[in-house]
Amino acid sequence: MTVSFRGVIPPVVLARHEDRSLDAASNERNLNRIIDAGVDGLFILGSSGEGVFCTPGERLDVIEHTMRVVDGRVPVLVGCIDTQTQRVIEHVQVAEQAGAAAVVVTAPFYALGGPEQVEEHFRLIHAATSLPVFAYDIPVCVHVKLAPDMLLRLGQEGVIAGVKDSSGNDVVFRLLVQANEAAGRPLVLLTGHEVVVDGAYLGGADGAVPGLANVDPEGYVRQWKAAEAGDWDTVKKEQDRLATLMRVAMTATSLSGFGAGVGGFKAALTLLGVFASAQMPHPVAQLQAEEIETIRGVLLDTGLL
Amino acid sequence: MTVSFRGVIPPVVLARHEDRSLDAASNERNLNRIIDAGVDGLFILGSSGEGVFCTPGERLDVIEHTMRVVDGRVPVLVGCIDTQTQRVIEHVQVAEQAGAAAVVVTAPFYALGGPEQVEEHFRLIHAATSLPVFAYDIPVCVHVKLAPDMLLRLGQEGVIAGVKDSSGNDVVFRLLVQANEAAGRPLVLLTGHEVVVDGAYLGGADGAVPGLANVDPEGYVRQWKAAEAGDWDTVKKEQDRLATLMRVAMTATSLSGFGAGVGGFKAALTLLGVFASAQMPHPVAQLQAEEIETIRGVLLDTGLL
Amino acid sequence: MTVSFRGVIPPVVLARHEDRSLDAASNERNLNRIIDAGVDGLFILGSSGEGVFCTPGERLDVIEHTMRVVDGRVPVLVGCIDTQTQRVIEHVQVAEQAGAAAVVVTAPFYALGGPEQVEEHFRLIHAATSLPVFAYDIPVCVHVKLAPDMLLRLGQEGVIAGVKDSSGNDVVFRLLVQANEAAGRPLVLLTGHEVVVDGAYLGGADGAVPGLANVDPEGYVRQWKAAEAGDWDTVKKEQDRLATLMRVAMTATSLSGFGAGVGGFKAALTLLGVFASAQMPHPVAQLQAEEIETIRGVLLDTGLL
Amino acid sequence: MTVSFRGVIPPVVLARHEDRSLDAASNERNLNRIIDAGVDGLFILGSSGEGVFCTPGERLDVIEHTMRVVDGRVPVLVGCIDTQTQRVIEHVQVAEQAGAAAVVVTAPFYALGGPEQVEEHFRLIHAATSLPVFAYDIPVCVHVKLAPDMLLRLGQEGVIAGVKDSSGNDVVFRLLVQANEAAGRPLVLLTGHEVVVDGAYLGGADGAVPGLANVDPEGYVRQWKAAEAGDWDTVKKEQDRLATLMRVAMTATSLSGFGAGVGGFKAALTLLGVFASAQMPHPVAQLQAEEIETIRGVLLDTGLL
Repeated sequence: MTVSFRGVIPPVVLARHEDRSLDAASNERNLNRIIDAGVDGLFILGSSGEGVFCTPGERLDVIEHTMRVVDGRVPVLVGCIDTQTQRVIEHVQVAEQAGAAAVVVTAPFYALGGPEQVEEHFRLIHAATSLPVFAYDIPVCVHVKLAPDMLLRLGQEGVIAGVKDSSGNDVVFRLLVQANEAAGRPLVLLTGHEVVVDGAYLGGADGAVPGLANVDPEGYVRQWKAAEAGDWDTVKKEQDRLATLMRVAMTATSLSGFGAGVGGFKAALTLLGVFASAQMPHPVAQLQAEEIETIRGVLLDTGLL
Repeated sequence: MTVSFRGVIPPVVLARHEDRSLDAASNERNLNRIIDAGVDGLFILGSSGEGVFCTPGERLDVIEHTMRVVDGRVPVLVGCIDTQTQRVIEHVQVAEQAGAAAVVVTAPFYALGGPEQVEEHFRLIHAATSLPVFAYDIPVCVHVKLAPDMLLRLGQEGVIAGVKDSSGNDVVFRLLVQANEAAGRPLVLLTGHEVVVDGAYLGGADGAVPGLANVDPEGYVRQWKAAEAGDWDTVKKEQDRLATLMRVAMTATSLSGFGAGVGGFKAALTLLGVFASAQMPHPVAQLQAEEIETIRGVLLDTGLL
Repeated sequence: MTVSFRGVIPPVVLARHEDRSLDAASNERNLNRIIDAGVDGLFILGSSGEGVFCTPGERLDVIEHTMRVVDGRVPVLVGCIDTQTQRVIEHVQVAEQAGAAAVVVTAPFYALGGPEQVEEHFRLIHAATSLPVFAYDIPVCVHVKLAPDMLLRLGQEGVIAGVKDSSGNDVVFRLLVQANEAAGRPLVLLTGHEVVVDGAYLGGADGAVPGLANVDPEGYVRQWKAAEAGDWDTVKKEQDRLATLMRVAMTATSLSGFGAGVGGFKAALTLLGVFASAQMPHPVAQLQAEEIETIRGVLLDTGLL
Repeated sequence: MTVSFRGVIPPVVLARHEDRSLDAASNERNLNRIIDAGVDGLFILGSSGEGVFCTPGERLDVIEHTMRVVDGRVPVLVGCIDTQTQRVIEHVQVAEQAGAAAVVVTAPFYALGGPEQVEEHFRLIHAATSLPVFAYDIPVCVHVKLAPDMLLRLGQEGVIAGVKDSSGNDVVFRLLVQANEAAGRPLVLLTGHEVVVDGAYLGGADGAVPGLANVDPEGYVRQWKAAEAGDWDTVKKEQDRLATLMRVAMTATSLSGFGAGVGGFKAALTLLGVFASAQMPHPVAQLQAEEIETIRGVLLDTGLL
């Protein structure tokens, strides 16, 4: 029973009560809604999933609650994002015991180092678990770009199973897809850029991890099926609509970055009746009333409301 | 007699003799080869075209020689890249007198400023010429990203005619394409990223300015025609081959950046018999023998040799 | 019994056995040697002190062991460096229970945000503890520069007690010192740049947190006393020697960043008989034999060996 | 008759009429005022001196006018800042013919390259002139830091005569000063950071190139004489006042970067009766009335008005 990790694997955002504690009921509704849309997996505790905002206690709660709700319906990838190797390994071992299908790991961050240390980091993590390890390439957060040559080498040696690419460098990603094909596809290559998934599929990506799929999981599922069928007109048409929908993550004027993007997804989920609150973790404020009204307009325009 | 500026508009690289002086015969062969391939225009004195390497005298030579060789067969866009407004305006006026179809202008660079100055820069340049002005978005060189809201606003006001996007930010480019369509297409939007042109066309780009089209102009012309016909399988197939061909710009180990990329294009053109030398302008060295042999292999693999 | 936090407060590096576990005996020797030199405080679990490398268990061990060895002889500042507010607060509360004199906190990192979130972060942390909070300005690690206006405002409101400046921006630090004096000195301003401490003292800094003081605590204590006495020739003379000694952190060719710098300090402490090993935490390798020989030469040249 | 290039060498800012043309009378007053203060040289057409804003015609006017006014009273260093080698060489040759004492040259910019090209750039420029060449280290503008090892090597080989350091990296500058002393002082090392000149002098710098010396040349001359006499209390006292005066370059809210800093200097010079206008070159706006009032307050507070 092997998992392919191909297709649509949304990075699940987290519902919190107004007092910022985790909202299990909202999170259950969200997980079920995404699974019912036909996705191929779930990615929890990533950048959108507040992996770096959760305390150790919250982290455990999120993992256990997700596993209970999902109950084996789809594979669950668990983000194990932390500053350095040994800390990541402790997270990985918790995820493995809880039944994760794979772990997703960034380069180490905060302390300065070089490419040898990044590579050693992935090797040590692989040595400490029997789970597939996905390399998470997100230089905007860790300030290091994972070198494509290293990724392919680690794939060929079985150290990593795939890459979640949030690098913003579609040229390098395209060339990695091509090199991976030439090498017999040791890596599963997933794009994290929800606005240009169509181009990534045309270029040969194995799937997507779109934050926006929290808002419209069915759209990304339809798009993936069209891509599998070679129906590029539909792939593009879905993307055009999803690109418009992405405005939910771009309306904030009171906030930037994570607060604007994930805050926008949460506000949309609240308007859609999935979340009870759009509350954010400290020190991030939730979006304001007029911003939420703009988001309502985007949902109306794109037919989701 | 309006020029649409849609389609394939290669940024022409410059041949130099071994003593680094301009090689008119090689440049003439190159221009004719590109035009004969059926391109929709030419872009000279851009980043690949050594706009910032040419002395004032060389700059004038390149413009006059190109105009003489092209002789009206295709529109010629002239890069007017310089540190500040008044210097750019002097270049623009020379280009206008020489018969340029349009000018291509970056944000000012070297001195630090803010977005208001970037916008004022484009407004002053537009006021000083009757030529269409293309905004050249190339943050890797000028260290400023042109804001999409500003670009659209300048387009709607007739200040700029289009954008050459070398920003590497395909997400923002995609959203700009979408916003431009919603606004009635005031801008012509061209991608400069030769490896992911397929995704840009799928997303609605109006054309491409691919440096690699110096090496294989026919491939990019075929790809554009397929895109116009909605034949996405061909668009992708051409792109896959062109992505492999792009290795000519990535083999250098003795150099990085401009020297590796444009140096690789020049080496390929030398191997193809178009250029007499792969010489580079000071302070850049030309590629070394073993690097050129690797490039020969890429040309053989992709059927160009 | 108020602590002034002025003077020399070394950021203590951590000894590890060859198997990378903590080496209590070496750490005890190191703490005692630094205290005996006459320093004014100690800073543990900072960037040099492997705050982001320690697992939660190691973190607790380091705090408890340090408190036991120091036994009230000098105040101990505890680094509480983590990605986000709630996680930092949990670290702060542990430090407070263990008897820390103050906590040292960076801006949040990994997730993208804005200046309002940085300020809210410090406010929330202050609200959660009765300990003085030092803001740790280290953009090379967290990729945000703490704005001097914000720092002064937080100082005037009693939210933060001081700043450890590792920003590398001596111009802004100088202006902050001046503004702080004009405001009645609400902040204690400490420089973390061990090579230019003389200039910082001349400009009015309240002390230093020099990583190199692990190697030569007496030199930095002599320098501080000279600065307090207005004996600038001695301040400069000590700095000249310490700048030469800083070469211990710059000899590495097999490593860069943390591994080179802290690795060099550890190698020097091993050569000085303080540490039993120069081992580093995963994924960082320790320095190699020839690099250690170069460090031996620097110690000989500067009279420490 | 050798020039030492030690001491205070202000980077002269340019007066323009309201119509943005050069204002010869104001520029003459400014040059004479600075020379009368007792400076050791002048640096024209640098970053503050609008080197990258001047058209070729203006550039020539500035050089010729300055030489005529200065008339040999102090050595004049001419900034030859341009994107690439051959263009710089043309500027250098003009400066040499006009009687410059030295030229000041940055790394090439705009096109991407590597450290070998930067070194080759300086070697080619040295080979093309008999003038002393100063390397201008200003990564905030050219996005490359000049490596201290390269600078020392070029100094020892006679390729460069000195360094104007505007790198903002006082640690590396301090270590370069030390290495230069150990090598017999082949380089003249000048700091460009007007707010921390005291620390640079304490560390052994050979002089300063402070933009703020346009406003208060006498202050910087007094400070240099005190440093030469080892009177560090006076050095510091002058610096404290000059740091306060630096607020003239930091009051702008309508502008950032060059426009705020140089705009502030020009506004101060207008208030002091030296300049007839604080006009800036396109696309930069001049400071607004309320900003100029704030600058008047700074001049009053520091005794210049």
